[in-house]
Amino acid sequence: MKKKNKKVNAAILIIGNEILSGRTQDKNIAFISNWLNTNCGITVNEVRVIPDVEKIIVENIRLLSKKFNYVFTTGGIGPTHDDITSASISKAFKLKYCFHPEAYKILNDYYGKKKFNDGRKKMAKMPKGAKLIYNPSSAAPGFMTKNVLSFPGVPSILNSMIENCKKYLIRGLMIHSKTLNLFTVESNISKQLGIIQKKYQKFVDIGSYPFFRLGKIGVSVVSRSTSKKKITRSQQRIIKSC
Amino acid sequence: MKKKNKKVNAAILIIGNEILSGRTQDKNIAFISNWLNTNCGITVNEVRVIPDVEKIIVENIRLLSKKFNYVFTTGGIGPTHDDITSASISKAFKLKYCFHPEAYKILNDYYGKKKFNDGRKKMAKMPKGAKLIYNPSSAAPGFMTKNVLSFPGVPSILNSMIENCKKYLIRGLMIHSKTLNLFTVESNISKQLGIIQKKYQKFVDIGSYPFFRLGKIGVSVVSRSTSKKKITRSQQRIIKSC
Repeated sequence: MKKKNKKVNAAILIIGNEILSGRTQDKNIAFISNWLNTNCGITVNEVRVIPDVEKIIVENIRLLSKKFNYVFTTGGIGPTHDDITSASISKAFKLKYCFHPEAYKILNDYYGKKKFNDGRKKMAKMPKGAKLIYNPSSAAPGFMTKNVLSFPGVPSILNSMIENCKKYLIRGLMIHSKTLNLFTVESNISKQLGIIQKKYQKFVDIGSYPFFRLGKIGVSVVSRSTSKKKITRSQQRIIKSC
Repeated sequence: MKKKNKKVNAAILIIGNEILSGRTQDKNIAFISNWLNTNCGITVNEVRVIPDVEKIIVENIRLLSKKFNYVFTTGGIGPTHDDITSASISKAFKLKYCFHPEAYKILNDYYGKKKFNDGRKKMAKMPKGAKLIYNPSSAAPGFMTKNVLSFPGVPSILNSMIENCKKYLIRGLMIHSKTLNLFTVESNISKQLGIIQKKYQKFVDIGSYPFFRLGKIGVSVVSRSTSKKKITRSQQRIIKSC
């Protein structure tokens, strides 16, 4: 994994009617974002959830791949008619949508010739020139096309694959995060917190999140920065004045 | 609640660094989408998660409020410096950002004069002319500005408030949904399913989702349509041929 001494960002594009309709609770946003942040120093700056509609996928791939360093897509790379992510990404980048020889071989070996039916063959079709992301759970690989990385939607399978895309990514400046749990309410500290955030505006992002735990009310104050020192200093200020 | 004999759609805009960073697992997308679908016949067509940055909030409010019948925002209406949703929506619609007299009175009564500090007063500031969405959990109301409805990010509070926005919404055509659980794998039914989807293209959306439950592998085939009859017919076809 190459390193870059600057911030690297990404978008996540969740493709799937089942998430939009509320039928399925998304678990991939938090997982991918956490993984990118702690393993690669990559910050997720935007997430979109869109339906299984070719025109909408194409538009979003074009827009997000220009706007961010990486785009992570989830969903729509299975064997059925509503799995149209691979074909749509091909269209977005004007690349041929065709069998990837290595993906074809992996799936042929996994299923055996007799069980390698048309649905399964479809999972070996992707944008020409895509780089494979190996899948240790169910064989069908994910893939990277330009700066777009495509994963399946099933969280357990995605989780098992994510390490295999690391070699394709450039590592950015690590964003550190520290949480201070205060037993107070937000409105009692909001004025001081605002003043401290202003002072550290360029270096530290301070967020405040109320919590209710074991009958106690409190506020988690989260400081995020590329500099651990600046986090510590801002937190000392918070402890003193809040 | 008025009724309309056509489809009504919405977008959800999740505003909050804590969701983007993966620190907090979102629960509001599935809840709002399910509630809108089953109670109001409103379909969520797009979701975005964005950071607490004024410029980005303003851009997204302008764009999504033009593109969809309703926009539901969550997060950023509390008392601290990172709660900038109300001010940003005011800016997006070029409305004055000022105290809402009724919201001010509700919060003043709730906290009592002595405890009604500046942070809490901030929660009574919103775009001029906003309609209140009452909050039975923690008093601070949500509000509706043009076609944009703003809720807090804490799921339990949001859930307790949602019924109170119903009176502002126009009910659309109800989308019915039925699930068929088949003990097979997707690739064995993908061909037939594709043919049936093509036949019912105009009337029924058919989605297929693998599941692993109690050691058994299967596929949930979900049919969604405004017509219950068409769902039943398409499912009979699926049972026959898959």
